[in-house]
Amino acid sequence: MKINENYRKLEESYLFSTIAHKVAAFQEKNPNKKVIRMGIGDVTLPLCPVVVTAMRDAAAEMGRKESFHGYGPEQGYPFLKEAVQHYYFSRNIQLNEHEIFISDGAKSDVGNILDILSTDNTVLVPNPVYPVYVDTNIMAGRKILYMDANRDNGFLPLPDEKVEADIIYLCSPNNPTGAVYNKEQLQQWVDYALSKKALILFDAAYEAFIKDSTLPRSIFELEGAKRCAIEFCSLSKTAGFTGTRCGYTVVPEALEFDGVKLNGLWLRRQTTKFNGVPYVIQRAAAAVFSEEGQRQVKENLQYYADNAKIMTDAMKGAGLWFTGGENSPYIWMQCPNGMGSWEFFDLLLNELNVVGTPGEGFGENGKGYFRLTAFGDRRDTIEAMDRLTGYLK
Amino acid sequence: MKINENYRKLEESYLFSTIAHKVAAFQEKNPNKKVIRMGIGDVTLPLCPVVVTAMRDAAAEMGRKESFHGYGPEQGYPFLKEAVQHYYFSRNIQLNEHEIFISDGAKSDVGNILDILSTDNTVLVPNPVYPVYVDTNIMAGRKILYMDANRDNGFLPLPDEKVEADIIYLCSPNNPTGAVYNKEQLQQWVDYALSKKALILFDAAYEAFIKDSTLPRSIFELEGAKRCAIEFCSLSKTAGFTGTRCGYTVVPEALEFDGVKLNGLWLRRQTTKFNGVPYVIQRAAAAVFSEEGQRQVKENLQYYADNAKIMTDAMKGAGLWFTGGENSPYIWMQCPNGMGSWEFFDLLLNELNVVGTPGEGFGENGKGYFRLTAFGDRRDTIEAMDRLTGYLK
Repeated sequence: MKINENYRKLEESYLFSTIAHKVAAFQEKNPNKKVIRMGIGDVTLPLCPVVVTAMRDAAAEMGRKESFHGYGPEQGYPFLKEAVQHYYFSRNIQLNEHEIFISDGAKSDVGNILDILSTDNTVLVPNPVYPVYVDTNIMAGRKILYMDANRDNGFLPLPDEKVEADIIYLCSPNNPTGAVYNKEQLQQWVDYALSKKALILFDAAYEAFIKDSTLPRSIFELEGAKRCAIEFCSLSKTAGFTGTRCGYTVVPEALEFDGVKLNGLWLRRQTTKFNGVPYVIQRAAAAVFSEEGQRQVKENLQYYADNAKIMTDAMKGAGLWFTGGENSPYIWMQCPNGMGSWEFFDLLLNELNVVGTPGEGFGENGKGYFRLTAFGDRRDTIEAMDRLTGYLK
Repeated sequence: MKINENYRKLEESYLFSTIAHKVAAFQEKNPNKKVIRMGIGDVTLPLCPVVVTAMRDAAAEMGRKESFHGYGPEQGYPFLKEAVQHYYFSRNIQLNEHEIFISDGAKSDVGNILDILSTDNTVLVPNPVYPVYVDTNIMAGRKILYMDANRDNGFLPLPDEKVEADIIYLCSPNNPTGAVYNKEQLQQWVDYALSKKALILFDAAYEAFIKDSTLPRSIFELEGAKRCAIEFCSLSKTAGFTGTRCGYTVVPEALEFDGVKLNGLWLRRQTTKFNGVPYVIQRAAAAVFSEEGQRQVKENLQYYADNAKIMTDAMKGAGLWFTGGENSPYIWMQCPNGMGSWEFFDLLLNELNVVGTPGEGFGENGKGYFRLTAFGDRRDTIEAMDRLTGYLK
């Protein structure tokens, strides 16, 4: 029996374990110092009341023979697909119900979608990048090209006609940089994909953080996108579902390569290798899309947006260059005084007792940059920014 | 962009849609006739009270900031892995906690495990077979060999030294045949795999239906299995989790090919392409393994076993040859009077108003055989058997 040799090419990422070790060592030496964590992209507010109620009711349903649910449709229950369809429709995007696939989160589907695509495709990813885009393609042996995201282009690289790519990963609002493409920029990507007969894998996991109504929250707002893009979305950040696991993937009917509809291929993949999201979780997710659910999740989103505002105000006050934070929960800052990512990490931890993520953990172009997240507690966020601006004065 | 061309080689299975069409047509013509469904392998009893309570409590936990759970470990929470570890230990199988991976069901992991194995392996599957074993390998372009399961070997094929296979699928108690390997037979498979340096993928989804204590419920009861096997298990049938989605996969530390531990590869796969099972579902699953949980699920298992007994008694009374039903929820019967699978299907539906699954839907060797399941309602099961034996008299 032979293993998949591509796994040998994977580099182990020691980023988060190195951070954890450094923080643990610091805390051991300084047990009385309060460390504020702004490193990991996980939410901290609990599930909304409507979501909890829906989940509890669904659990009770499952305990009665007459309302019990066994195997459901692999691609999700109609009640949830209709809720997602309506959510898109409220933003003037028309989808058929069978174009929507309920998933256990964007991460799974972003990885699994590759099953239906040839390993002989060339992949284009930004640098810096969410490591999952890279690792899942290394596992399958695909050739990977990088495009430079940097201060000059505001960490929003645009297509280069000279580059021949088959599969393009875009994430907007971006993880890790928080940068958001505007319509004109994203249209350039759609046009490029159409001209190259390429496929865009669009990660919209942070769309709910967009406040500026001129910015696209879905790639399907752009002309022609249904002929070249798959969109992945998630309730993880929108509704605090990081530990509850539900998202959705849109594979348009019009998406066709080599005479084959990707929608049909994906349905075949999912019915063969997936058995759907738990009934109770789908009920919880549907509650998010109810009128009261939308009101409640927006309160939580506003809490994180207010955190981000506190952070960006502090950055501006300190004269630091950054992207994100305005339509995104991530702030990507240039390290002050020409410091390196890890140098700044050590300074923040040891002097200010604040933890963030060194940008170079996301790729070469992250060197000298740093990611902070707005998912923390309000008072902690204020205190961390006070410590930072006080130090930089 | 090129699609995965292997998908073109997949055959569409029209088995269950053909069945559904035939049943719908019959019901339309005969609206007053009560059709009893014994075709699909889905449970009908609701979740046990301890499971529902655990799920409701966990939902409430998720609604409070101080007890909220965000991202969990991709491989499952320690509380559930320890419960599974204890479950194995109660059957004298010692596992390390990190050999256990919590999954969203056996189907997902049986398919996804192939990610870490070379596409250049030869696969050996029984015929008849659970179609997922075949389709997932066609998708990856692997060569597939079939081994004959038939009346002569009791639908329990044994290894043939002349066959060179790298990956071997075994399912015991078997779906669709209900046949169960004994220890001596399964040891032959382990010895064969060790001698060929092959990997056994052991599907133990129906282990909880084994009543005969001499029959192996886990492949790890066999000498040497930790060096050649991965085991997939599920709460779908054990605890009615078909719509709740939780299982576990055991990848032993000792399992090594080409100098690489599969445990590490699988961990890398899961941390990259999966984000774990929902917290509330893991709490529900842990309740299954509690003392009271085990008592409650065993009551349900006994209900299905009693159904199976009614069915096998009827078969014996009618002089029909069958496998399964004694340590399995499936009964695999030879169609009476030399009938073909579909011929018998039509007879059952039109004359007796009972629905089952034609054996040939699971492969060539299923021709002339028929699958019935014991997951139905008690009174329906009795009535269906009365109709069958009455007709055959």
